[in-house]
Amino acid sequence: MTVELLSVGTELLLGNIVNTNAAYLAERCASLGLSCYYQSVVGDNEERLESAIRLALSRADIVILSGGLGPTKDDLTKEVTARVFGRELYKDAHTKERIAGYFRQMKTVRVTENNWKQALVPEGAIVVDNHNGTAPGLIIEGEKNTAILLPGPPNELKPMFEEAIAPYLNKLEPEEIHSKMIKLCGIGESRAETVIYDLMKKQTNPTIAPYAKTGEVHLRVTAKAENKTEAEKLIAPVLEELYRRFGSLIYTEEEEINLEDAVVDILKEKEITLTTAESCTGGKLAGRIMNVAGVSDVYYEGYITYSNAAKEKILGVSCDTLESFGAVSPQTAEEMAAGAAKAAGADAALSVTGIAGPDGGTEEKPVGLVYIGCYLRGNTRVEEFRFTGNREKNRDYAVVRALTLLREELLGLSDR
Amino acid sequence: MTVELLSVGTELLLGNIVNTNAAYLAERCASLGLSCYYQSVVGDNEERLESAIRLALSRADIVILSGGLGPTKDDLTKEVTARVFGRELYKDAHTKERIAGYFRQMKTVRVTENNWKQALVPEGAIVVDNHNGTAPGLIIEGEKNTAILLPGPPNELKPMFEEAIAPYLNKLEPEEIHSKMIKLCGIGESRAETVIYDLMKKQTNPTIAPYAKTGEVHLRVTAKAENKTEAEKLIAPVLEELYRRFGSLIYTEEEEINLEDAVVDILKEKEITLTTAESCTGGKLAGRIMNVAGVSDVYYEGYITYSNAAKEKILGVSCDTLESFGAVSPQTAEEMAAGAAKAAGADAALSVTGIAGPDGGTEEKPVGLVYIGCYLRGNTRVEEFRFTGNREKNRDYAVVRALTLLREELLGLSDR
Repeated sequence: MTVELLSVGTELLLGNIVNTNAAYLAERCASLGLSCYYQSVVGDNEERLESAIRLALSRADIVILSGGLGPTKDDLTKEVTARVFGRELYKDAHTKERIAGYFRQMKTVRVTENNWKQALVPEGAIVVDNHNGTAPGLIIEGEKNTAILLPGPPNELKPMFEEAIAPYLNKLEPEEIHSKMIKLCGIGESRAETVIYDLMKKQTNPTIAPYAKTGEVHLRVTAKAENKTEAEKLIAPVLEELYRRFGSLIYTEEEEINLEDAVVDILKEKEITLTTAESCTGGKLAGRIMNVAGVSDVYYEGYITYSNAAKEKILGVSCDTLESFGAVSPQTAEEMAAGAAKAAGADAALSVTGIAGPDGGTEEKPVGLVYIGCYLRGNTRVEEFRFTGNREKNRDYAVVRALTLLREELLGLSDR
Repeated sequence: MTVELLSVGTELLLGNIVNTNAAYLAERCASLGLSCYYQSVVGDNEERLESAIRLALSRADIVILSGGLGPTKDDLTKEVTARVFGRELYKDAHTKERIAGYFRQMKTVRVTENNWKQALVPEGAIVVDNHNGTAPGLIIEGEKNTAILLPGPPNELKPMFEEAIAPYLNKLEPEEIHSKMIKLCGIGESRAETVIYDLMKKQTNPTIAPYAKTGEVHLRVTAKAENKTEAEKLIAPVLEELYRRFGSLIYTEEEEINLEDAVVDILKEKEITLTTAESCTGGKLAGRIMNVAGVSDVYYEGYITYSNAAKEKILGVSCDTLESFGAVSPQTAEEMAAGAAKAAGADAALSVTGIAGPDGGTEEKPVGLVYIGCYLRGNTRVEEFRFTGNREKNRDYAVVRALTLLREELLGLSDR
């Protein structure tokens, strides 16, 4: 079965935003065993949108459209797709009530008239509730093809795809496609690929596909079989081989587990409390740890110490250390971590100090130089990193590296 | 003049990588005054690539292809495009010498035979030197249309575009396109659109296009004219009208300025220092403020106070307040903000306390309930919000609302 992706939005044509939805949908469709031969982007223009929809329907069994479901005049995806399928729009009472509920919860007093446009759905369409916004998803099943309409904001599109669209697509495909995602930290993509080059070349069912994420590598192992049990039987020995080769670099084999989830799980299991002291990441590391619901069991407080004075006052970094070695030094990172643990009364602490850029670099201490300290029950390990991205990227990498370092230290505890 | 982007690569169809080239090229083409109505992605398949090229040429004056210029068998872009234009390939001595030089510089001893494939160019094509790799860019001028072939790696594509392709395209376009981006905070997309519905309907040159961002609305005003001065003349009265209607909700008209930049600019201008005390956002707010290079002038330290004990110890929130009203209450938000300012010795402080979810909600205090406090030189204002997203979205919205609240309070200082 073939699928085609059609992203709708002038902001994509103008390059205002990067089309991350297409990459996400492409990856998920591939994992569901659907073949995708084309992706397209078209703007908020009625005529061109219609021709793009017709072209996509002529080439693929399923067309997934994203974007253009908002309340404004610009948003045409639903109207034009309905017309292509020869369906009228009617006001869906269920969706109307959901939208009203959304605004009640937001305590919006004045709901503008154009918001009710989102309650219009094509005749015969399957309406998919949006738990993170007002535009519902829609599945329009025609005689030959199916169109699936998803809201454009990634934080609405992704949960909707996982909850409703993936199960729907899964049922359409006669062969069972089953995949497992293995997530690694502490290894780069090309290194990881070298380690499993022979497997990637040899394997056709299951296949192994690497995905590079910031500071992580994810490997998707996908098998086709008559049923789930058979697919799982094909996957099992490959997983075993991957564990043999990567060992503890693998932090999860669960799709929905992120690195911060994995780290917090270990903290909970070992009953270790954590704190953070951040300079250049300035709260990003704590913010990521706090993504984990229920982190309050192991994380109570943290510090952003951007100035030298704050490093001294809050963390007790010595004036001598700051003067002799500078704020961006292994010595400062070490004292920051140990000092944070003491201040918070925590068992473990992560510290980050570095030069995120674009300014502040010197020949000796260039932009991208970051020291990460990890204190754990009396011992502190410090690592040096030299990132090569812009300010944002350097800070994102530092966050992932800090989590990776903590994970390594925590696992070291257990005599592995 | 119209342009169409065609990205070639199976890794894009599988979602292995995000198509950042398309966003980059789209933005640059828009800024050069070229109209782009379609973007497409096709894999490394001869037949489908040919049909995609023919389709793009039927719709646009210029087709920019990226990817598929490498040395391997998979790389077909040059071969297929040459065939579509009816051109033979010949070995270009200049390019061959450049490739040899590249390998000499890289100290590569054995150059594999397939590398010389990159020295083949279509008859009559303009060859564009690649200063960051081996595949040259190519401009094939046909009778009706032009195809521009660029290497896929962004670190080869972008410098080549800036050095050679942008100047080439600039000469082709007689009309100047000029646009201004107006960014608003503290208003929703549909409310914003209602305010300017008449303008959007009436305006054709310039056009006004709204973009919804998390907690923000961006409006792009785009004019076409003979030259930049004329375009700016068309835009000026529209901007004036937008300022008249939205007033201080507009926080910038600079493309590269974000809300955090605008807020930090005001802080710097007024010489006001800021700190943060975060519960549910857990560092995300500080992390966003710290996106701004040079924020160290006004932000020295901040606190993540997730537990009640941390709120008491670090911020001095009273035990009575926490017991009587709870951690998620306007009273706690107020004491957090005032206490943070005192602890940091800062002029201003933002506090965030709320129930991000998915757990922890009650009927009285549901998931999504967030209080944001803003302390400014003796006065604290607290606002209540009820967000309806998931944990991640609620926290993202809280961050934007906190910045918006601070901006309002800061502007209130200046008697506006």
